[in-house]
Amino acid sequence: MSSEFPDDGIFAREFLGVGVAMFRQADGTIAAVRDQCPHRFAPLSRGKCIGDTIECKYHGLRFNGLGECVLNPHGDVIPPNAHIRHFPVEERFGLVWIWMGDPDRADRRKIPDLEFLQQSDYRRTIFNYIFAEYRSDILVDNLVDLSHADYLHVGTFSGGPGEDTQLKVWEEGDAVVAERVQIRAPTPPIAGFLGPYTDSTFLLKWQPGNVLSYSIRMVSSDPALHGEELQQFAHIVTPANHERTHYFMAVTRPLNGRDPPIEARAANQRRVVSEEDGPMLMAVHQQMDGRELMSLNPLVLPTDAASLRIRRVIKRLKKRDSADLVPLS
Amino acid sequence: MSSEFPDDGIFAREFLGVGVAMFRQADGTIAAVRDQCPHRFAPLSRGKCIGDTIECKYHGLRFNGLGECVLNPHGDVIPPNAHIRHFPVEERFGLVWIWMGDPDRADRRKIPDLEFLQQSDYRRTIFNYIFAEYRSDILVDNLVDLSHADYLHVGTFSGGPGEDTQLKVWEEGDAVVAERVQIRAPTPPIAGFLGPYTDSTFLLKWQPGNVLSYSIRMVSSDPALHGEELQQFAHIVTPANHERTHYFMAVTRPLNGRDPPIEARAANQRRVVSEEDGPMLMAVHQQMDGRELMSLNPLVLPTDAASLRIRRVIKRLKKRDSADLVPLS
Amino acid sequence: MSSEFPDDGIFAREFLGVGVAMFRQADGTIAAVRDQCPHRFAPLSRGKCIGDTIECKYHGLRFNGLGECVLNPHGDVIPPNAHIRHFPVEERFGLVWIWMGDPDRADRRKIPDLEFLQQSDYRRTIFNYIFAEYRSDILVDNLVDLSHADYLHVGTFSGGPGEDTQLKVWEEGDAVVAERVQIRAPTPPIAGFLGPYTDSTFLLKWQPGNVLSYSIRMVSSDPALHGEELQQFAHIVTPANHERTHYFMAVTRPLNGRDPPIEARAANQRRVVSEEDGPMLMAVHQQMDGRELMSLNPLVLPTDAASLRIRRVIKRLKKRDSADLVPLS
Repeated sequence: MSSEFPDDGIFAREFLGVGVAMFRQADGTIAAVRDQCPHRFAPLSRGKCIGDTIECKYHGLRFNGLGECVLNPHGDVIPPNAHIRHFPVEERFGLVWIWMGDPDRADRRKIPDLEFLQQSDYRRTIFNYIFAEYRSDILVDNLVDLSHADYLHVGTFSGGPGEDTQLKVWEEGDAVVAERVQIRAPTPPIAGFLGPYTDSTFLLKWQPGNVLSYSIRMVSSDPALHGEELQQFAHIVTPANHERTHYFMAVTRPLNGRDPPIEARAANQRRVVSEEDGPMLMAVHQQMDGRELMSLNPLVLPTDAASLRIRRVIKRLKKRDSADLVPLS
Repeated sequence: MSSEFPDDGIFAREFLGVGVAMFRQADGTIAAVRDQCPHRFAPLSRGKCIGDTIECKYHGLRFNGLGECVLNPHGDVIPPNAHIRHFPVEERFGLVWIWMGDPDRADRRKIPDLEFLQQSDYRRTIFNYIFAEYRSDILVDNLVDLSHADYLHVGTFSGGPGEDTQLKVWEEGDAVVAERVQIRAPTPPIAGFLGPYTDSTFLLKWQPGNVLSYSIRMVSSDPALHGEELQQFAHIVTPANHERTHYFMAVTRPLNGRDPPIEARAANQRRVVSEEDGPMLMAVHQQMDGRELMSLNPLVLPTDAASLRIRRVIKRLKKRDSADLVPLS
Repeated sequence: MSSEFPDDGIFAREFLGVGVAMFRQADGTIAAVRDQCPHRFAPLSRGKCIGDTIECKYHGLRFNGLGECVLNPHGDVIPPNAHIRHFPVEERFGLVWIWMGDPDRADRRKIPDLEFLQQSDYRRTIFNYIFAEYRSDILVDNLVDLSHADYLHVGTFSGGPGEDTQLKVWEEGDAVVAERVQIRAPTPPIAGFLGPYTDSTFLLKWQPGNVLSYSIRMVSSDPALHGEELQQFAHIVTPANHERTHYFMAVTRPLNGRDPPIEARAANQRRVVSEEDGPMLMAVHQQMDGRELMSLNPLVLPTDAASLRIRRVIKRLKKRDSADLVPLS
């Protein structure tokens, strides 16, 4: 997330098992290089920024944002192999996107459209971040499965299961979309003004890079009660490595003068995710013990449709060799 | 141990590397199932009991005490593979016994006779439990080796080595029995009324499932001093996994109106086991680094007779394929 | 270090992955045996010294300083295989030296000459010890590379890089010597009396067993300013195992009545090593993830000359099969 970056100084984070050191350059763009000096393998993030370079704290070598060594204090020349990997970075929608693959193959057009998060005089968006101690695919499975809320989040996000629920899942290009309609479910606390029972429509879109956009519309099951509760948010899931995950959240709402401030809603979402999803997903992570879901021959339910379809899309993308794009922050 | 079980709610414990969720049913019996939902591998013990079923906290599937799914809220049918392992359980002598093997091969008659622990108007038994951070065979070796007390427990269980010690070890069916007679040893603090020196007879019986019964009789080495100190207790050793062990203790005594209450004796035993055996056995566990004793080519002493004979019996039982019975609690 | 040894009692430490139990004998010499009873693998250091023997706390077997079992309380004979490894030990220069190889091949003449540390009425030496949580070769590379001080230790040991620096490295027998001359560097805080700029000569000698002796002479770059700052110290690096390292330090100075006490200087060195080198070397250790430096194809700079030459000498010594000598304490 753009808000995480210091004005000066180095910001370090691991993506796909690779340590990355990032810093904002004089022209406002963000540079990202491997967080490891090629000399004695010191993490460059222990050093400091000098202009648009990082100086290694161990022996003073300096590298620019393309990973090239631009100063060697210990010799008359800069050795030809004195460079480190760099990673193309793009800021968009309040988020920072990194391409961990071959820089020549980076393609800005692959960044999913999250225009609906864009802040303006008419819209406010709150970002949150959790460092999750479980594997990224366990989190994605959780986020595309809307049915778990009626059990894991009873009393917070959900009031409990409804009388009837219909789920439709389809693909749109490389995206997977799920629409879930729930009839006459007990109203969750946040929508008490809609009476004791509500009908809800959940629209969820997964895009490569594990970018999930949500739109939820809730109305009273009682036709006499008007009004609606609308929610729009995004979840983005980036692997730190095979065991840990960066979990980015964005809650957005139009500034229409009627609704309460969105800050409390975003803080509540972060709290529920930490306190209710967190322990459950960590427990699932331990039970699965590093193995992939399908290799464990799980019981498959109709509610797993999106989870299975995403696996199929990722398999297809891997064949096309273009699944390297991951969101960063 | 029966006393560990909540009246309602789920009790979770690992045996032989398998997580088990247990709960008391309406008819008073205890049900035990694998602590892992077959859908997304959530631990069922994070859920709750509803009647004689467990409801998974993640997606609401319900399982009965035989591990059968009896409710699937996400579809019109219960998938045929929606079941988990269950484990036969039997309560006896204040202890809870579980069979981790094929339920059809469970045999109540294999539960060792611990009738001498049975509480009544004339007998009181105190149970204790330690979660031991060392391998179960290291604990069994310690418990069947009566000689270590004279060094590791000097000043608590023992007053020091005696002038003469005789050890006899033999088999009784699948049990191993050891009788140790110790002549003129310094009296331990608990038996000070017997004068400075005592003669002791230790009788120890190991039965499959690592059930150890002890009977100790101590008299004064001075024929002029009458009276005796009698102790009866059991130790039961159940592997949690290859690294950790459940250690159950039961101290029992007839209520004859003369002896002091047994509570202090049981608490003292638990304390000595924790503070004197615990650090030593953890250190031995680290030194052995996951390897089996005999593979390390140890120095073998005459006092190791019971330890070696038990290994022989277990080898024989494994051949008969019937060594799966383990005590549980 | 001799100062670490208790007058009576056992001192335990791991060298080259082997636990060693040491104790001072009646004749003042130090005995060292493997810290593991051959019976049930209890660490002997949990026992106690009885005369010139160690009694095992678990079953009372006693071993002398040659690792021979001299008492077996559990049988009429001492089994012929009842012995453990012993390690020749020599105290010299306030340090304790151990030979972890075949005792018959131990050779006192291989202990490097550190006579300059010898305390007397005219010289004071302060010893320090750090248990370092990084690999020993990472520490040796750090200690023979004098250039890192100008970056990692700016404001403590160093005032920053000089205008010119010359490095010469050569071998003297099995030793590697480095001489570094630095011209007109900002004066470090400890030598403020020499004016704002100083010229320094660093002389460093590495000897097998990772024994490093240092001599540093610093004078003012301003010919009008007289006086000099002299430092003499030794660093000794002994592997505990592949992951951890014993780091011994000795700072020495003649007692000439003019200089301030050496205690503050030694304490400052220990603090800088802990607070500045420690975190950096732990980070490098993590980045290298157990792999040897050269296998990672590092960028090699002219300042790495000593580090590379030491690798060559060790390779040669290994061929001669005589690289087992390690300092101990």
